[in-house]
Amino acid sequence: MSDRPPTFAVGLLGSSFMGRAHSRALYMLRTLEDDPVALPDLHTICGRDQARLQAMQRRYGWRHRSTDWHALVEDPSIQLFVNAATNALHAEPSIAAAKQGKHVICEKPLARNAVEAQAMLDAAAQAGVVHMCAFNYRFFPAIRLARQLIEEGEIGEIRHFRSRFLLASAADPHTPETAWRLREETAGSGVVGDLLAHHIDLARYLVGEPVAVDAYARTWAPERHGVQVDVEDAVVCTVEFQGGAIGTMEATRVTPGHVLDSVIEVDGSLASLSFDVQHVNELKLSTAAKASTINVTDPRHPFVDLWWPRCHGIGWGDSFAHELRHFLGAVAGRWRVAPHGATFEDGCRCAQICDAVLAAAASGARQRIPVGASAGEREVDVS
Amino acid sequence: MSDRPPTFAVGLLGSSFMGRAHSRALYMLRTLEDDPVALPDLHTICGRDQARLQAMQRRYGWRHRSTDWHALVEDPSIQLFVNAATNALHAEPSIAAAKQGKHVICEKPLARNAVEAQAMLDAAAQAGVVHMCAFNYRFFPAIRLARQLIEEGEIGEIRHFRSRFLLASAADPHTPETAWRLREETAGSGVVGDLLAHHIDLARYLVGEPVAVDAYARTWAPERHGVQVDVEDAVVCTVEFQGGAIGTMEATRVTPGHVLDSVIEVDGSLASLSFDVQHVNELKLSTAAKASTINVTDPRHPFVDLWWPRCHGIGWGDSFAHELRHFLGAVAGRWRVAPHGATFEDGCRCAQICDAVLAAAASGARQRIPVGASAGEREVDVS
Amino acid sequence: MSDRPPTFAVGLLGSSFMGRAHSRALYMLRTLEDDPVALPDLHTICGRDQARLQAMQRRYGWRHRSTDWHALVEDPSIQLFVNAATNALHAEPSIAAAKQGKHVICEKPLARNAVEAQAMLDAAAQAGVVHMCAFNYRFFPAIRLARQLIEEGEIGEIRHFRSRFLLASAADPHTPETAWRLREETAGSGVVGDLLAHHIDLARYLVGEPVAVDAYARTWAPERHGVQVDVEDAVVCTVEFQGGAIGTMEATRVTPGHVLDSVIEVDGSLASLSFDVQHVNELKLSTAAKASTINVTDPRHPFVDLWWPRCHGIGWGDSFAHELRHFLGAVAGRWRVAPHGATFEDGCRCAQICDAVLAAAASGARQRIPVGASAGEREVDVS
Amino acid sequence: MSDRPPTFAVGLLGSSFMGRAHSRALYMLRTLEDDPVALPDLHTICGRDQARLQAMQRRYGWRHRSTDWHALVEDPSIQLFVNAATNALHAEPSIAAAKQGKHVICEKPLARNAVEAQAMLDAAAQAGVVHMCAFNYRFFPAIRLARQLIEEGEIGEIRHFRSRFLLASAADPHTPETAWRLREETAGSGVVGDLLAHHIDLARYLVGEPVAVDAYARTWAPERHGVQVDVEDAVVCTVEFQGGAIGTMEATRVTPGHVLDSVIEVDGSLASLSFDVQHVNELKLSTAAKASTINVTDPRHPFVDLWWPRCHGIGWGDSFAHELRHFLGAVAGRWRVAPHGATFEDGCRCAQICDAVLAAAASGARQRIPVGASAGEREVDVS
Repeated sequence: MSDRPPTFAVGLLGSSFMGRAHSRALYMLRTLEDDPVALPDLHTICGRDQARLQAMQRRYGWRHRSTDWHALVEDPSIQLFVNAATNALHAEPSIAAAKQGKHVICEKPLARNAVEAQAMLDAAAQAGVVHMCAFNYRFFPAIRLARQLIEEGEIGEIRHFRSRFLLASAADPHTPETAWRLREETAGSGVVGDLLAHHIDLARYLVGEPVAVDAYARTWAPERHGVQVDVEDAVVCTVEFQGGAIGTMEATRVTPGHVLDSVIEVDGSLASLSFDVQHVNELKLSTAAKASTINVTDPRHPFVDLWWPRCHGIGWGDSFAHELRHFLGAVAGRWRVAPHGATFEDGCRCAQICDAVLAAAASGARQRIPVGASAGEREVDVS
Repeated sequence: MSDRPPTFAVGLLGSSFMGRAHSRALYMLRTLEDDPVALPDLHTICGRDQARLQAMQRRYGWRHRSTDWHALVEDPSIQLFVNAATNALHAEPSIAAAKQGKHVICEKPLARNAVEAQAMLDAAAQAGVVHMCAFNYRFFPAIRLARQLIEEGEIGEIRHFRSRFLLASAADPHTPETAWRLREETAGSGVVGDLLAHHIDLARYLVGEPVAVDAYARTWAPERHGVQVDVEDAVVCTVEFQGGAIGTMEATRVTPGHVLDSVIEVDGSLASLSFDVQHVNELKLSTAAKASTINVTDPRHPFVDLWWPRCHGIGWGDSFAHELRHFLGAVAGRWRVAPHGATFEDGCRCAQICDAVLAAAASGARQRIPVGASAGEREVDVS
Repeated sequence: MSDRPPTFAVGLLGSSFMGRAHSRALYMLRTLEDDPVALPDLHTICGRDQARLQAMQRRYGWRHRSTDWHALVEDPSIQLFVNAATNALHAEPSIAAAKQGKHVICEKPLARNAVEAQAMLDAAAQAGVVHMCAFNYRFFPAIRLARQLIEEGEIGEIRHFRSRFLLASAADPHTPETAWRLREETAGSGVVGDLLAHHIDLARYLVGEPVAVDAYARTWAPERHGVQVDVEDAVVCTVEFQGGAIGTMEATRVTPGHVLDSVIEVDGSLASLSFDVQHVNELKLSTAAKASTINVTDPRHPFVDLWWPRCHGIGWGDSFAHELRHFLGAVAGRWRVAPHGATFEDGCRCAQICDAVLAAAASGARQRIPVGASAGEREVDVS
Repeated sequence: MSDRPPTFAVGLLGSSFMGRAHSRALYMLRTLEDDPVALPDLHTICGRDQARLQAMQRRYGWRHRSTDWHALVEDPSIQLFVNAATNALHAEPSIAAAKQGKHVICEKPLARNAVEAQAMLDAAAQAGVVHMCAFNYRFFPAIRLARQLIEEGEIGEIRHFRSRFLLASAADPHTPETAWRLREETAGSGVVGDLLAHHIDLARYLVGEPVAVDAYARTWAPERHGVQVDVEDAVVCTVEFQGGAIGTMEATRVTPGHVLDSVIEVDGSLASLSFDVQHVNELKLSTAAKASTINVTDPRHPFVDLWWPRCHGIGWGDSFAHELRHFLGAVAGRWRVAPHGATFEDGCRCAQICDAVLAAAASGARQRIPVGASAGEREVDVS
């Protein structure tokens, strides 16, 4: 038997969908390996509703609960801060936690806008803490394989990027929807921050930096159960990348014909790649000779040895376990968050692009996105 | 037995890919029905190469051949002019034929640019001849079903349009390619007129009028076997429609991973449609409940009774037979070209949008496309 | 320009579905190549209904019509006999034609049973005429590619064969169905001869000789519009091949959920193949690394240069043109019918296997199928 | 907050693939619901290898470990026995545990053969304990939906069943494989018990009782890393059901082209169903009108409310959590194991059918399978 793994006390803010996703992932981490890189101590869960918090304790074993995030981020016994709150509570608690020297992972979008995101990056960089933005798509084996194939030159020079993130969630105005998602004040944006941000991050991870965008946005359901919606529920974009590639991106939550259709595609001078989140265990690779589906449940693919012998697919939520393992490993000094995990710098850059998309849609004019000016301090090396 | 169908003497200009596609379709028309709406007399084939023309005569039974299109369009025995020539020979011969009172069907794109297209429309309208632009996609049973479902309200209010036309044809700069396709002077444009035009026409047929576009274009293979390419081989667009729908469109011939990936999708407030030219016998219809594939080889679908009892799919080229049957039926007064066939007005409108896409790509600025100003005289009624 | 191709006078028996399929193919042959291997003279169409025959003449250009097949097969001006009649009219007219020295191609199943089929083979062999059984599936490019990959060793040692031919055609007892298909006297069998025979022939073409079968059969719709059905409308089989491979086969016409689902699959020690007649332009090839779809519309695949430049798929009916071109080429001495075309020997062998399947279903006991005893004289070489 | 759920002390035998699958599921149960039906106390893990057992304790929190299964099943503090051992250790420990009054869930196949399985059923029935055979496929939402659609009459009269379970696991004789799987003495059978049993159980769950089978079996890799393989690695069957439906079934582990291709299909007089374990979140439903894919990640489907808000798919291993929750709920008296869970009676019946398949393959003669004679005592009602 090996030495005991390092263990870090975690405070989690958020008890809804994302709070559950992160709690479950943290709870599962010990099951993934005989010798884990690091393990979490599920110290405190923080939210607004006592009954909900008690239920989270029963489900995932959180030792303490709190309804005061200020107390949480100031608690000296907590080492890691997982921010799974609503968008309006991303910046202030994350900044406070970083200032307290806590390592921080924050849900995407990193903030409601680029100004907030920059402040978060600055705070984390200044504090010298490990920081990560929870773009969980990077932690599907198929996305890692896509990146590997691109780095190995299998795809050739990248020419096209194409993504669509189509949801039915707001198609029916009578379907309940969390109210905060409908207002700019609380959400920052609609589908741009909620959906498009995932694909912008993947575009950056796989293709490179977007340098200009055009966009149209719509709000098809302007009122939902009494709330005046002031964020977009549909957006389409064209995008230009630093290396010359061009692309289209699209996000919507008003298409009942697509319950969850999240696909990204990369076309190069040698081959094309396609990933569909409905089939997370597959990557499509097509060449002039044939269009292929690669099943990524073979243990030679990353993360797969954390699961089953072979051929048995994982689920969407399991990507969060990979992600939090990555975060803990970075905190433990086993590796750095970048390039495979997204840092606050990535989250900040994504926020700038989201803002550019919204500005393009609002103005009808192409928005150039400056690249290269350092968004702030680089990632800390804790090892 | 019924009366003998009306028969029209046809002159065809073009002996390459499209010349063959139209010849074969004309040759097959008599086989489609016991009582055809009208039949062609394959009178004269016109092109530059005598040996090629002789081969066309042997293959399809053209009675005469000519290397002089001026003679062809002036031949009083010819009633219908089928223009399957290269883009640079669309306007002048079609206008000349119309002035001679011949009914004209011309391959897409109708012309190299909107100015030429407008002149063609004006000439045809003034001459009072039947005119048609050969957008063959409108003649797949699945596209007709898509239109029908939209008209019946099955899709609801249309919110998104999405298309991609991805080819490998120019991915390898050493692959032979017809030289005229590589120069603006001869082709007008690259993938915009060649590929995107198909989807622009379908967007108009299914969704409505585009009113604004943004675009990026690229020429990834700037030289091909000694020719300096001055047209785009890749383009991406965002588009806004008159009814408020928004969309993305894309065309390229430099993606080896896609030998021919031509897909259009329409998302409405009730359901979504998708058509893929690799599977012409299918239409996808998805709702919140399920994603379905409708096999359109049942005789209740249009055109299917022209073929097999049921369940046996047609090929890509068979759409040309439907198209030319439609043209002959319009000439015979059985129906009008519009709304299911594209007229020169449709071809002209498509050319305006193509020009707007190219201007948007060149300028980086959103291009508004005026709608409503009549593009010219309306379709003649020959009945 | 080349010499004129040899031309052969054709007499066709049959004016229904298959009569049309063969007529259309014959009519199209001249369009396929600049220098055809041989061409048909559509001399006489023979059937029962004068009006129908007249329509066939108008559609396909048959020069003469006849309602007397005896006269047809005795007409000295006719050189080739195409038998597209109902099953009960396969043996006698084909034998008579062969005795008159006419080369014969006969629709599948070759006969109502193996006894009839043997007599046909004997007659053709004795007469020394070219004989062919019209298993059109062999003439899809994808099936040829499958055979080629197997011969090249890409699949390895073959271990499994799997086929299903699922139709909805008899699912609704009120759907009109040709009455002769419902009676053993006229059809020989139900789905065994009509559907399973296709896959048995492909199994022999791709895998090898079946040596034993087990089967269950059913007649789910025992009466259809007044006809007492005495043939099976559903059958399932297990099959053992000479080389050791084992397989399942299935045919039915009572599954409304499958309008036409005809799929064959071959699994070897290195890779697997799958062909689906709904997507005739594709072959699936899967290995341990990936599952691929090969688009066979590239001109390097057989038959494709008879059609479009590339990427544009053919339809189901076009396989008949390949098939009749093959037959005419064999008659002209350009190649032999075997191995790529099915001879009467293949048709006879298939009939023996069909009989074994029916016997297995009737008896509940495994049927061994003798192999190796020559079924008769070998194919004539006319060159 | 509700009352605390009943908690049961669990002893688990097995620390390999299935031991991990059950451990993980038990560990996760508390995370599924705010108010669980019952919860496990992970009391003792039992296996042969101390280091392995220690790792299992660290991963899943097993409180004790043991290398002596006799001690485990006699430990009075243990209430539930989960048998995830190799096939040779299914019968004896399960019987011993039942005799000690422990409720038992045993991995599939229930035993090496029907004799052993009957003894297990007899013992469990006599002891009056809750018994369950771990056919986890029954616990995919899509399979439950399939059953529901059948019960509601959506599929009509069932006519065909079709299944294939194709693996690559033994295709390469050099791939390591657990030695016990290669010998009849330890495994009972090869792919019949390991793979086909899953589909036999689903056939019984969805269609009804098989009453006769024919089969061929093969051992393509007769020696693997020094072990003489005496079980089949490939089998094909035809099957007849009590209600008249007929079907094909197939299982193999020697097809490298299929890493894990496990599909079942049911065709009825109204519609057809298909389930593919590579896409566990989907059920295909096809009718004469269209072929549809139903995404079962909507909370109206069973189990889905245990996971995410909607649209986010679960993984293969998550079915074990549903299964063990079902077992614990039965022990707690909330519901009975049948009909949705498989009891030892189901496991015993499946073993009888497996034996019949093997006998059919060995003898070449159709095997009839008696139905209706009670296999033993019925399921206990603990409530």
